[in-house]
Amino acid sequence: MKVTIIGLGLIGGSMAKDLRSSGFATELIGVDTNEDHAAKAVELGLVDRVLPFEEAVKNTDLVLIAIPVDKTLIILPKVLDLIDGGTTVTDMGSTKKMLVASVADHKRRKNFVPAHPMSGTENSGPTAALDGLFRGKMAIVCDQENSGPQHIALVEKMFQNLGMDIAYMTADEQDHSTAFVSHLPHAAAFALANAVQVKEDRNIIFDLASGGFRSTVRLAKSSGTMWHPIFQQNRSYVVEALNTYIKHLKEFRDCMKDEDDEKLWGLIENANKIRAILEGENPHLVKNEETITKFYTK
Amino acid sequence: MKVTIIGLGLIGGSMAKDLRSSGFATELIGVDTNEDHAAKAVELGLVDRVLPFEEAVKNTDLVLIAIPVDKTLIILPKVLDLIDGGTTVTDMGSTKKMLVASVADHKRRKNFVPAHPMSGTENSGPTAALDGLFRGKMAIVCDQENSGPQHIALVEKMFQNLGMDIAYMTADEQDHSTAFVSHLPHAAAFALANAVQVKEDRNIIFDLASGGFRSTVRLAKSSGTMWHPIFQQNRSYVVEALNTYIKHLKEFRDCMKDEDDEKLWGLIENANKIRAILEGENPHLVKNEETITKFYTK
Repeated sequence: MKVTIIGLGLIGGSMAKDLRSSGFATELIGVDTNEDHAAKAVELGLVDRVLPFEEAVKNTDLVLIAIPVDKTLIILPKVLDLIDGGTTVTDMGSTKKMLVASVADHKRRKNFVPAHPMSGTENSGPTAALDGLFRGKMAIVCDQENSGPQHIALVEKMFQNLGMDIAYMTADEQDHSTAFVSHLPHAAAFALANAVQVKEDRNIIFDLASGGFRSTVRLAKSSGTMWHPIFQQNRSYVVEALNTYIKHLKEFRDCMKDEDDEKLWGLIENANKIRAILEGENPHLVKNEETITKFYTK
Repeated sequence: MKVTIIGLGLIGGSMAKDLRSSGFATELIGVDTNEDHAAKAVELGLVDRVLPFEEAVKNTDLVLIAIPVDKTLIILPKVLDLIDGGTTVTDMGSTKKMLVASVADHKRRKNFVPAHPMSGTENSGPTAALDGLFRGKMAIVCDQENSGPQHIALVEKMFQNLGMDIAYMTADEQDHSTAFVSHLPHAAAFALANAVQVKEDRNIIFDLASGGFRSTVRLAKSSGTMWHPIFQQNRSYVVEALNTYIKHLKEFRDCMKDEDDEKLWGLIENANKIRAILEGENPHLVKNEETITKFYTK
């Protein structure tokens, strides 16, 4: 199968690696407005060749859009304008409501499957691409009733080849959930990084490399090019999530300030429940264990 | 050398493993009020044997206290009452001001080296002990002028054997720094875990396993037994750190709410600087590269 990837960065590059090694893609075409990234992606063997945008999307089986969400808003309608009737189009962005609204009336809307594979690192560009980045992680497929069944099936098969579990929800639900479990942690990390940098004059920075700080602040390295438009497109839900978080931080701070040690103990105990949630079974997931096993043993 | 470890959990157990494998300790004595932990530590070979408290500290070269900081406040004076004049005592706790104040006038104060090896995981108990937990991490040694030079030297040698870098500061500086780089990230993770659990009714929890959430909330699994007394002992500095953090979160939220996208971009850009800080050189550290190399190649 011929797969065209628009955006040869961390996500697009990592997709390319595993789609090739799993045998899902036999031919990989790349598109990137950044010429250095395009050349590097060919040099690294992520894609077979790089083609101009129009040529790359016109004659292919699957178009995968893996660029910042503000750029996806511009590119997706153009892709849908150009594709053959049989081509499937999907995207990898972290926000979905504005995107699906923008193509709601497009004549090729059924060719498009809005998706969000929940994996990544704080690094970017084709050199950041990793084997197995998506394995064991979750992919969200949105508004499936608005896509053609064969297009849904192909995107499901792709995620299965990557070793991912799939969850189905509306674009609105995905933006609301993701605001809490992905966008909020990023906003929290950005704010934490800014908070500790205030203390630089006090020689405090020196020990940042240790302790719990490193994992908590890791996401603060993430690029503004990717994250700024995500925050813009999911403004109201992220503000809701930040308000909820700030409320809980204030509660924690007030317990400490007021020496309400019993309540503080309760807050820690309640937070500890996250262990069972993180390690537990999730009834909302469609587990693709058979596929994952096949993928692993290939 | 004979080493007595009080508290055979994650920290004490991991210390035992590496102090033995590096050859620093030739005999390891354990003390633990939890009989299951004590038995498990012997079974796992972390210590050679478990002895009653008095016997264990009376005839030994080094006493290492690795228990929650509220318990350390009670135990340390008793240890100093019992030891021979030549024995070195150190502790592994995350707070130091209250502890050093509590033994300031003890006749054996010079035998005590207040220390804080900055490493750990969110797990606890002897089965959580790990090889190499401290390698490449930082240890803080506090108020060194108040300890005898041979006791400082032995504790330095111990940390070098563990492959750690050492930083020197006052107990007050350590509590202030640690409030920002360790206690604040823990408080932030506890509050984040509580904030997202509010959303459980909306099926949002199901996708917690993916995205940036897992690393950001990891610390929220940490035990209250360890963390509650840390927050109590470092109340004012943690409140200061939380206030700074809440201020930065509100700034981020207000940018989003007010659609001040230019300022939002600036906040992300400033947060990104943490990458250089985390990956950069630190002039405050005494690097023990030679020792680390020796340790690695052993």
